[in-house]
Amino acid sequence: MLVNALTGEELATAALDYPHAVMDTHFLDGSPLPPDFALQHPGDYLQVLEYTVPKVVKDAGVSPSSVVGIGIDFTTCSPLPVYRDGMPLCFTEKFKNHPHAYVKLWKHHAAQKYANKLNEILAEIYPSILAKYGGKISSEWMVPKVWQTLAEAPEVFDEADYFVESADWVVWQLSGEFVRNACMAGYKSMYVPGVGYPPREVYAALDERLADLPQTKLGGRVVPIATKAGGLTEAMAKKLGLVPGIAIAVASADAHVTVPALGIGSEGKLLAIMGTSTCHMILGRAGEPAKIVPGMCGAVEDGIVPGFTGYEAGQSCVGDHFAWFVENLVPAEYKDAAQKKGVSIHAYLAELADKLTPGESGVIALDWWNGNRSILVDADLTGVFLGMTLATKPEELYRALVEATAYGTRIIVENFIENGVPVEEFYAAGGIAEKDPFTMQLYSDVLGMEIKISGSPQAPALGASIFAAVAAGVYPSVSEASAKMGKLKPLTYKPYPEAKAVYDKLYAEYKTLHDYFGRGGNDVMKRLKAIAAEAKSKK
Amino acid sequence: MLVNALTGEELATAALDYPHAVMDTHFLDGSPLPPDFALQHPGDYLQVLEYTVPKVVKDAGVSPSSVVGIGIDFTTCSPLPVYRDGMPLCFTEKFKNHPHAYVKLWKHHAAQKYANKLNEILAEIYPSILAKYGGKISSEWMVPKVWQTLAEAPEVFDEADYFVESADWVVWQLSGEFVRNACMAGYKSMYVPGVGYPPREVYAALDERLADLPQTKLGGRVVPIATKAGGLTEAMAKKLGLVPGIAIAVASADAHVTVPALGIGSEGKLLAIMGTSTCHMILGRAGEPAKIVPGMCGAVEDGIVPGFTGYEAGQSCVGDHFAWFVENLVPAEYKDAAQKKGVSIHAYLAELADKLTPGESGVIALDWWNGNRSILVDADLTGVFLGMTLATKPEELYRALVEATAYGTRIIVENFIENGVPVEEFYAAGGIAEKDPFTMQLYSDVLGMEIKISGSPQAPALGASIFAAVAAGVYPSVSEASAKMGKLKPLTYKPYPEAKAVYDKLYAEYKTLHDYFGRGGNDVMKRLKAIAAEAKSKK
Repeated sequence: MLVNALTGEELATAALDYPHAVMDTHFLDGSPLPPDFALQHPGDYLQVLEYTVPKVVKDAGVSPSSVVGIGIDFTTCSPLPVYRDGMPLCFTEKFKNHPHAYVKLWKHHAAQKYANKLNEILAEIYPSILAKYGGKISSEWMVPKVWQTLAEAPEVFDEADYFVESADWVVWQLSGEFVRNACMAGYKSMYVPGVGYPPREVYAALDERLADLPQTKLGGRVVPIATKAGGLTEAMAKKLGLVPGIAIAVASADAHVTVPALGIGSEGKLLAIMGTSTCHMILGRAGEPAKIVPGMCGAVEDGIVPGFTGYEAGQSCVGDHFAWFVENLVPAEYKDAAQKKGVSIHAYLAELADKLTPGESGVIALDWWNGNRSILVDADLTGVFLGMTLATKPEELYRALVEATAYGTRIIVENFIENGVPVEEFYAAGGIAEKDPFTMQLYSDVLGMEIKISGSPQAPALGASIFAAVAAGVYPSVSEASAKMGKLKPLTYKPYPEAKAVYDKLYAEYKTLHDYFGRGGNDVMKRLKAIAAEAKSKK
Repeated sequence: MLVNALTGEELATAALDYPHAVMDTHFLDGSPLPPDFALQHPGDYLQVLEYTVPKVVKDAGVSPSSVVGIGIDFTTCSPLPVYRDGMPLCFTEKFKNHPHAYVKLWKHHAAQKYANKLNEILAEIYPSILAKYGGKISSEWMVPKVWQTLAEAPEVFDEADYFVESADWVVWQLSGEFVRNACMAGYKSMYVPGVGYPPREVYAALDERLADLPQTKLGGRVVPIATKAGGLTEAMAKKLGLVPGIAIAVASADAHVTVPALGIGSEGKLLAIMGTSTCHMILGRAGEPAKIVPGMCGAVEDGIVPGFTGYEAGQSCVGDHFAWFVENLVPAEYKDAAQKKGVSIHAYLAELADKLTPGESGVIALDWWNGNRSILVDADLTGVFLGMTLATKPEELYRALVEATAYGTRIIVENFIENGVPVEEFYAAGGIAEKDPFTMQLYSDVLGMEIKISGSPQAPALGASIFAAVAAGVYPSVSEASAKMGKLKPLTYKPYPEAKAVYDKLYAEYKTLHDYFGRGGNDVMKRLKAIAAEAKSKK
C-alpha cells in the first residue's frame, strides 16, 4: 500500500499471492510433509516486493522520488535459518530440498513437544519469565521452533549462523542491515528490553547445544520499532524503482502495527483485531514498566508503540466458532432460505439472531471450541452449550456463540482493569469488525462500551506506513504520526442500556461457568479429552 | 387385538382412528380452544369397539362364542364428567357445546396453575403423599383437572355426578358396572390402597366445594386390576357380536399393562417403554409395602401386577431429543446423503454415530431438553452439550444425546437399587426398542446389562388381554398368565465389557454434572429460564 505520509490517504494498493503459498501438506517436490508442518519459501517475499512496489507507485501516479520510506509488517514467529550474510540455507544447492531449511510459518505447530518441555523447564528454573507470557510459551514461538530444528535436522541447525524472523530478513534484504525488531523479539523470543534473554542455564537445560543461543544463532542487535533499520540499498532500489537510501523501518508484527493504524497512540485504548481468532492490544500508562497481568500472551515494553508497555491478549477461537456452526449444524431449510434471499448463511443467521432480544433464548455458551488463550491459557478446555429446550432454534445457538465470545472479551477487559491496566475505550479491526454489524452491536451491549472501527480495511499496511513515516523523520513519534495518519470509520457502535442490563446478568452466569470449568472446579473437559485420546488410540 | 388366551398367539388386530381425533386447537364447532387444551369425544371410544371387535373375530376366523373376555388399556389420566347412570354430560343437548364436558386427555396441560397450588398446599399440610409421587402432582392428573373444571366451568362441575377415567367409563359401558381401577386411582388420583384418599382438609384447602370430592364426584368403588368388573351386557354383546356375560376386566393404564406383556410377573425386572419419552416400570418384592424411592412418578401397591408394589419412573424426553436434533441441527449434506442411501436421517445419523467408539468424541450431554422427571423431578432444568472442539461433527452430538438418555436411565436404575428396589434384569418396549438397534446396544453398554425386547409390537394390547384372561379365570394370577402369554424377541442386546468400562468413566462425569446442575450446585438453568421469561414478556 502506498500512503500519503502527511494525511494517511491510501493512494494505491497491490497484492501478489505467494507463488509457493503455504506448504502444509506437501513440500516443493510433492513429497508429503509431517503433520502440523507449515512452511513458506522466502523467495516469495522478494517477488512480492518486486511486483507490488513498482505497481503501487505507477498506479498512484506519483513520482518515485517522492517515496520517503518503507515499512514492513509480518506474521510472527516465522523464523528462517540463514548464513552470516543473510543468504537463506534454502537458497543453496545443499539445502534446497530440506524442509527444515525453509521458513517455519507462525502456524507451524509441529514443535509442540519442544514447547511442552520448555514450559516445564521454565516453570522449574525460571518461572518469572512465564508470568510475562500468560504462563506458557507457545509452540509457535522461536525457541521451540529452533529446538525442533536442532532435534530433527541437526545438519540445518549446525549450518545456520542465525535463525531470523522473516520480517527481519526482509528488512535485511531491503536495507543490508541485520537487526532484530524489538516487537517480535519481545513477544516471541523471550527478550526483555533492558534485561535481555533468559540466562544461559535455561537454554543449557533444554540441550547443551542451545546453551549459547542468544549469543550465537539468536544473536544480533535488537532495535526499537518505528526506527530506521537502514537506507534502501542500491541493488534493491533498482529492483523496486525507488531512490536508494530512503528509510527502511524496523519491522513489526501485523497485529501490533494495527494499533497506530486506528490512531491509537496512548494508554487506555484496547484494540481487538477480530477474525477467525481475536488479538487484543493495549498500551499501558506512558513510561510505566510492564505489569504482570495474568493470562496475557505477552507484556513488552516498547513492543507496540515506543514509550509504552504493549500488552497482548488473545481469544484463540472467535470467527472459527461461527464457521464451525455454519458448516456443521445449519439445516437445509436455512441454507435454502439464505440462498433465496441472496445472502450468506452467516448473514441469514445473524439476521434471525438479531431479532432475538438478549436473554430471550435461555441458552448460554462457553467459547472454548479451540481452548482458551486469555485469560485461562488452557488449550485443553472445550466448548459448552447450556440451556436448550425442545423449542431451541439454530439461531439461538448461533447467537449464544457470538455472545460467549463477547463475554470472553469482557473477561479480558476486566482482567486488564483489575491488574492496573486501564481500559477506557474499545476499538476493533479485522474481518468481523468490518463486515458484521450484528456482532459488533452485541459486543458493545455486552461490554457496555462504545466501539470504534478501523477506518482502513488494510489497517496493518497503514500501520506499517506510519512506522515508515516515523523512521523517515516525517514525524517525531508514532503517537504524532498515528494521530495524523490513523483512521476510524465515522460509524461507531453504542451500547443500549436495556441490553447491557440483561447482559450484566448473563455475564455473571458466564463467569460462574468459566471459573467452574476453567479454574479446576470440575476438570471434566480435560478428562473427556484424555478419554477421547485413549479411545482413538485403541481404534 | 384378538389373542389366544392359552398361548398368547396374536390372532388378529384392527384399528380405527378416532373420528374426532384429539381436539387441541379447535373445538367440535370449529371455535378455537384455549392454549394447552387437549380433549377427546367419548363417543369415539364406543365406535372403535363396535368396529374393531367384530372385525378381529371375523379376521381371525374364530367362533364368537370362544371369546372369554375383554381387557381394556387406556391413556391416563383422561377424566370425563358423567351423570350417575354413566351418561357423559357431553352427550346431552345442554352440554354438547361445552368443551369442559368432554374428556380432558392426559396431555391436556391447561390445569397447570391448579397443579401448582395443589402442590403448595400438599407440601404444607400433607407432605407425606408427595413423597409417593416424586415430590409433585402433575397437571395431567385428576385433581388439577377436576379443579380446573370447577374454577372455569362451575356449571359442568355442579351438574356432574362423577368424574371418571375414560378407561373406567368404557368398562362401565361394556359391563354396566361402575368401578374405578386401582392402577389409575393409585397413580393419578392420590388413592393409597388400604388408606384411601388424602383427608378432607386437603381438599377443603383447595376450595370448600372440593372438600368432599372423594366421597362425591370421585366416589365409587376402587377395585384391583386383573379382576372382573362384570359381565358383558346384553346390549353391548349384540353390538359387538359376542356372548353376553363374558368377563370384562377392570381397566389399566397402557404403560402399566405392558409389564405382563413381556412376561414380567415378579420383582427385579425393570421395563423401559421407550418412545418420545420413556416410562420405567418395576415391581418390588412380593408382598412388600411401597418404599419411598425419591424421584419416582409413583409407587402403588397392586398398581401394576397384583401382589406387588408397582413403581413408575420416567424420563420426560428421550426420542424427542433425537427428533429435535434432526429437525434443527442436521446439515443439508447429511439429509442428501441419507436420501441417496434411501434411509431415514435418524438411521443415517445412527449409522455414523455407530462408527464412533465410546468416549471418542469427547462430548457429553445432559438429557434435560424437556426438564428431568426422574429422579430430580424438575421441569425447569434444561439441556447441556459439553466438550465440543472445532472438529466436532453432528453425529458426535447426536451420539452424545443418545448416551445422555442412557446415563439418565442408569441413574434411575441405581436410584431404585439404592432405595431397596432391586433391578436385576432390563426389558424394553416401544418404538425405540423396536426400531433402533444402535440405541439399544448403547443402552446395554452404558447399563452393563443385557436388554430383552418385547416380542409383540402391540405390547399394551397383549397386556390387556392377559388381564382379561385372568379376569375370565383362564389363569389364577397375572404372573401365571404373563408367563404363558407374555413374549420376548429371541434377540437380546448384551453389553461389550470394553464399552462398559469406558462408559463407567463417562457416567461418573455425567453424574457430577447431573448433581452440580440438578441439585443446586449451580441453578444457572433456572435463572436463565427466568431471564428468558422476562425478556419475552418485554418484547
